[in-house]
Amino acid sequence: MKPTGPIPGHYASTDNGLRIAGATPSSLVEQAGATPLFVYDRAAITDRIAALRSAIPSRIEVNYAVKANPWPDLLEFIEPLVDGFDIASIGEWALLDEAGIDAARTSFAGPGKRDEELEIAIAAGVTLNCESAGEAGRALAIGERLDTAPKMAIRVNPDFELRGSGMKMSGGAKVFGVDADKAAALARRVVDAGCEWQGFHIFAGSQSLDAGAIAEAQRNTIALASRLADEAGVPLPKLNLGGGFGIPYFAGDEPLDLEAVGEGLHETAAVDVLPDTRLVLELGRYLVGEAGVYLTRVVDRKESQGETFLVVDGGLHHQLAASGNFGAVVKRNYPVAVVERSSDAPEEVVHICGCLCTPLDRLATQVELPRAEVGDLIAIFCAGAYGATASPMHFLGHGPAREMLV
Amino acid sequence: MKPTGPIPGHYASTDNGLRIAGATPSSLVEQAGATPLFVYDRAAITDRIAALRSAIPSRIEVNYAVKANPWPDLLEFIEPLVDGFDIASIGEWALLDEAGIDAARTSFAGPGKRDEELEIAIAAGVTLNCESAGEAGRALAIGERLDTAPKMAIRVNPDFELRGSGMKMSGGAKVFGVDADKAAALARRVVDAGCEWQGFHIFAGSQSLDAGAIAEAQRNTIALASRLADEAGVPLPKLNLGGGFGIPYFAGDEPLDLEAVGEGLHETAAVDVLPDTRLVLELGRYLVGEAGVYLTRVVDRKESQGETFLVVDGGLHHQLAASGNFGAVVKRNYPVAVVERSSDAPEEVVHICGCLCTPLDRLATQVELPRAEVGDLIAIFCAGAYGATASPMHFLGHGPAREMLV
Repeated sequence: MKPTGPIPGHYASTDNGLRIAGATPSSLVEQAGATPLFVYDRAAITDRIAALRSAIPSRIEVNYAVKANPWPDLLEFIEPLVDGFDIASIGEWALLDEAGIDAARTSFAGPGKRDEELEIAIAAGVTLNCESAGEAGRALAIGERLDTAPKMAIRVNPDFELRGSGMKMSGGAKVFGVDADKAAALARRVVDAGCEWQGFHIFAGSQSLDAGAIAEAQRNTIALASRLADEAGVPLPKLNLGGGFGIPYFAGDEPLDLEAVGEGLHETAAVDVLPDTRLVLELGRYLVGEAGVYLTRVVDRKESQGETFLVVDGGLHHQLAASGNFGAVVKRNYPVAVVERSSDAPEEVVHICGCLCTPLDRLATQVELPRAEVGDLIAIFCAGAYGATASPMHFLGHGPAREMLV
Repeated sequence: MKPTGPIPGHYASTDNGLRIAGATPSSLVEQAGATPLFVYDRAAITDRIAALRSAIPSRIEVNYAVKANPWPDLLEFIEPLVDGFDIASIGEWALLDEAGIDAARTSFAGPGKRDEELEIAIAAGVTLNCESAGEAGRALAIGERLDTAPKMAIRVNPDFELRGSGMKMSGGAKVFGVDADKAAALARRVVDAGCEWQGFHIFAGSQSLDAGAIAEAQRNTIALASRLADEAGVPLPKLNLGGGFGIPYFAGDEPLDLEAVGEGLHETAAVDVLPDTRLVLELGRYLVGEAGVYLTRVVDRKESQGETFLVVDGGLHHQLAASGNFGAVVKRNYPVAVVERSSDAPEEVVHICGCLCTPLDRLATQVELPRAEVGDLIAIFCAGAYGATASPMHFLGHGPAREMLV
């Protein structure tokens, strides 16, 4: 038997099974038309953002990292709840633009911005978080051609790391940003070249559950940005502190201590620290990850050599990360439940396999659950971020999942 | 420095760089409109199938496993070269149907076939490779309702394994097929129930480079299927021997010894062995994998802490497997080349990173290559199978790659 991760607290388990925002999952499936289905809980997102805002200093802005979940209805819903948006491609900008979101609230990071992307971003007034001297040069040249001063920040590869992060994006040779020891000179250069200077972007890592490590990285980030601005002799209108706030996926994961992160920020980002600088957090997974659940139906139940397999109509084509094939070194089980029997005692140990004809498509291994039959719904939690779009949707031709907000 | 895999032999390197089917990659990109671009070489596919046919007994049929690459133009091209098609979803059947391919040439495997899928397959006359007693029961019930005898084979989870396969699909408790010790009884049952009986499907594993192991698995497969048919007292009109033929991706991989596989089949599948049984190989990757190359353009060239990064306009959203995030335990480098300088001596060690704003998006690590500048084309080989559709195309909004046949 292998453990599963913790089910997020806002899902209620009644005697008759799981409830999502008060509704039965089967009624939601009926409304959506079919499984597999991603359900995103508006209240869970609202509550998460409210808790965040109440923990951190009011001066800190909260941006949504679109890459976590770019579903248009979700973007539209989250728009009034956040201060700005971080995008990673012009495709993501097109979604924001479609949703009527202002370029002035948008910044664009990513190490491979093509000239066509830079041109669209500059023309629209999106802030570029420049990842290299080369990219900055291309952006300035395009700005000149368009007769538009590009809005530019410099993304810095900091000389420290976010300890305990799921994905390190700093503290060594990296494709992201400009090395800290070169960033001031580049800042000076782009300011002198007449860009509309925005400041620095320092993203040290992601998916950390260690409040102390996050607080330390934020302290280091503010210190580094101040030093760079001084060294360059440029103002610091804005500083993107990155994100890194993790959510619990696996057994033994403890939720991030938001109060502790907030306390750290109240110290590090007190009103007299960089008083003329807008400080921004860039969060994706932390805002929406736990608010999403993936519902999939058991298509077959079979025994093989004494082991039981539940085969579901979903799979890694919608939830690649849950199958352990996206960045995971060790495969561990996400939180899962048999929807109608979520409060029943476990009765058996099963594997949950997706419908794809590949041994990679296993959504949970040796999990202890109440008995599920063909036709029953299975819930896989923590599906709000890096689900539908971070999976090979077209693999084996089963088609996309449905998505709904409740 | 880390080694790269071997570049497939049909790519020529001239003094002026790489040629694909005699053409310059830049001319192909111009024709296709832009990078990133998958180019599939018709002649490489034709030659591979011809070599295969000449090595194996003429009685052996060759099926194409659509999952490897379901691009419609490629399906249309390969149609006259193969005997049949194996599909893993009704979505894949829709592609074949669209291409005018006959259901009589098509069989459908996959552990999570939904009732709607079974119904479409039965109505069309596609053979079902049944994965469980439960699925067989559902298929028979649907057949009765439609007043159509379903064409059914039983997929068997064999009691042996394909040694050295990249993905084991046998030899233990598996989600695929019916355990060997239960398969005869199920065969008897579906024959008695009046299905249009097709035989057995035994797929022991994939991506093996060991001819001896493949020959052994084929010998075991034929023996097992004969035994099961005898035990069930049913005929054996057809036996799908599976595939498992691997291609070299990584340094040290030796191409599969096709002659040795052929010799094994000439012994195991001599004319007097199961003379009334159609024997079928099911191959995907082996037919098209090496025929494809992924072309992507350098967008940035940057240094960080003494290391050099080439950032390209493609990435794991098109070539997930090359990034080491799809089934790989250890990340190793695919074969890669700087297109215009493919015959030049290596000059530097670089990382090749995709354009996605995630540290997962690394297409090659510490590879020794001739110097590449912004604007240069990079080729990533072995991209004909499990590329475009086996990758999270929508991740980060950069959009799909183009595809072309030459």
